[in-house]
Amino acid sequence: MNFRISKNIFYNAIQSVSRAITPNSPVPALCGIYINAAEDSLVLTGSDADISIEITLSNANNEKTNLSVIETGSIVIDARYLNDIVRKMDSDEIQIEIIDGTLTRFSGGNAEFKINGYRPGDYPSVDFSVPEIRFSIKASDFVNIIEETAFAASSKETRPVLTGVNLHSDGSNLIATATDSYRLAKKTFPISTSEFNITVPAKCLNEVKSIYGSSEDEIEIALSTKKIQFRSSSTIMQSRLLDGGYPETERLIPKEFGYTMVINRRALISAIDRTSFIKTDNMSIIRLQINNKDDIAVMNKSQEIGESREELFASSYEGEPLDISFSGNYVMDAAKALSSDEIMIRFTGEMKPFVLTDADENSTVLQLVLPVRTYN
Amino acid sequence: MNFRISKNIFYNAIQSVSRAITPNSPVPALCGIYINAAEDSLVLTGSDADISIEITLSNANNEKTNLSVIETGSIVIDARYLNDIVRKMDSDEIQIEIIDGTLTRFSGGNAEFKINGYRPGDYPSVDFSVPEIRFSIKASDFVNIIEETAFAASSKETRPVLTGVNLHSDGSNLIATATDSYRLAKKTFPISTSEFNITVPAKCLNEVKSIYGSSEDEIEIALSTKKIQFRSSSTIMQSRLLDGGYPETERLIPKEFGYTMVINRRALISAIDRTSFIKTDNMSIIRLQINNKDDIAVMNKSQEIGESREELFASSYEGEPLDISFSGNYVMDAAKALSSDEIMIRFTGEMKPFVLTDADENSTVLQLVLPVRTYN
Repeated sequence: MNFRISKNIFYNAIQSVSRAITPNSPVPALCGIYINAAEDSLVLTGSDADISIEITLSNANNEKTNLSVIETGSIVIDARYLNDIVRKMDSDEIQIEIIDGTLTRFSGGNAEFKINGYRPGDYPSVDFSVPEIRFSIKASDFVNIIEETAFAASSKETRPVLTGVNLHSDGSNLIATATDSYRLAKKTFPISTSEFNITVPAKCLNEVKSIYGSSEDEIEIALSTKKIQFRSSSTIMQSRLLDGGYPETERLIPKEFGYTMVINRRALISAIDRTSFIKTDNMSIIRLQINNKDDIAVMNKSQEIGESREELFASSYEGEPLDISFSGNYVMDAAKALSSDEIMIRFTGEMKPFVLTDADENSTVLQLVLPVRTYN
Repeated sequence: MNFRISKNIFYNAIQSVSRAITPNSPVPALCGIYINAAEDSLVLTGSDADISIEITLSNANNEKTNLSVIETGSIVIDARYLNDIVRKMDSDEIQIEIIDGTLTRFSGGNAEFKINGYRPGDYPSVDFSVPEIRFSIKASDFVNIIEETAFAASSKETRPVLTGVNLHSDGSNLIATATDSYRLAKKTFPISTSEFNITVPAKCLNEVKSIYGSSEDEIEIALSTKKIQFRSSSTIMQSRLLDGGYPETERLIPKEFGYTMVINRRALISAIDRTSFIKTDNMSIIRLQINNKDDIAVMNKSQEIGESREELFASSYEGEPLDISFSGNYVMDAAKALSSDEIMIRFTGEMKPFVLTDADENSTVLQLVLPVRTYN
């Protein structure tokens, strides 16, 4: 293997595939990036066995790549060393050549590195074949779906399936749901594809967000019962799915409400945020006392630290006076995942789940939070 | 105690005094900021018993302070809560009032907090009296002295006096010296004051840097054998000194050199930085091979990772060929603490300390580094 390539393009690619790599993987070769130089292209692979990323660089895809393959071949190089070498290299191009077994030479400017690699045969094979069910979506739309739901997935491994986001299609809508069993986030987005019902690790979706960012380009999503793949012109990212049935969450969402408040989203977030340092058992429990739209108090109290009280004003309130307590962080997360200036919060009772949506009638995002019992 | 004050000015002041505070101090009241409202001024104190900071706010000092003391008095409030409350307060002014014992009310905008404070009597008394020896210096000049030396102080507590920077005056020059016994940094700066010889904790000097930054204002430095004080119009910062005699370092600095190289500072730093990921026992050992000014190699090698070699070109070199090894980080630190484009490195032999200075004849900074033995 022996090739030259634009340093910047190569560096961006190794940064992206490194997102799949766990340092100190039990399989040593998985700490590395698999580099395969073919005649007209360079393929880079990073994987932690669950999530895998493959990037193909070629002059056909981007003429600034300046790829020149002198000899085809492949090698695996530790991702940390590869990142360090390429990032600091003081030249526009970098040359990479296997000089002896797995010993690989990197040269650029006046500097030369000889690094011990791993044998390509030690790298576990990754199957990048395309699953059957496919649809296209604008990258920024999919990233929005992630931002509106993935935060609500569980961070605890006690019920592994809850660490993922459930993606369910009825043929005309994609319904994304995440819950840690104390709160739930649900987004509905129109698509046209076959029906499916899978659960994708939230970790994977957060990497999708990092890789595709706010791109306005379309990405192709392909999936089966085993894996999900995200494909753009040069990049394939794929992840295993979480096993186990996802809970039936639809019946948890109340359909009728006795109390409806419309309130400025920013004002609510700020009021909760201001008092979030007052914690009991490391949790900031907010008490919301609603008398009418002009008489609303956000309160918080801890034996040790002290207490707070802030007046809030709603745009409208329908219902009897209400006194309800909840995790401040959960309601802030939910309000941040909405997007309109005014949001609607609908309650069914002091100890029943309540629902936050954009005030707009056609809100496609629903955030549900369970209250907590307090003894203040 | 009951007063109103500009939120921003109060917030900046509590941020500054918080620099002296260690969370979870064994003396609980030292986790707090001592607030003392006098008739026309507000005095804030933070301390960890070693370093103490006092800031005085008054309308006379800054008319934007908008201080209005309704009732004099004092209280101690946990620095974390105070910072949280004031930072997020949604109002231009904040009112702080003791309402019951140590229970203190903070109000601003529509929000109100009642926080449990500490009794002022539980706060250890801090003596801010002015020591005898005094001199003035531009804050930015003193910060430069810190940046040129403090990094070389020891981070290990085995010889406590080496965790400080020695400040020594012969009446006309301030000589600042720091060493961890493997490298040494020395700065000479003209001042006019009495003679003294003290050692100031590097930690204190780094806080001085944060507080006075690159201000062009003069600060007054006052010191005794017990403490050092930094005084500006509204702020007093003081620190205990380190006990024990500081080693005689002057005799360690070679006066005659057999090898002298002048080289571009940035080029040397970049070459060492590029290879710093190649480590042996967690240390990057650089081998420098000098044949003549156009034939210089920076090399690095580790059994596990691999090796590197980079060609460097000096502006001049006088002496026989030289082959010397050293800690890459130490030489990078030393070169970064110099300021000219070209630096002079003077050697006395392969296993003898070498000296880096600005290439300029009148360099006021001297950096000394000990080589390391290698078996490559």
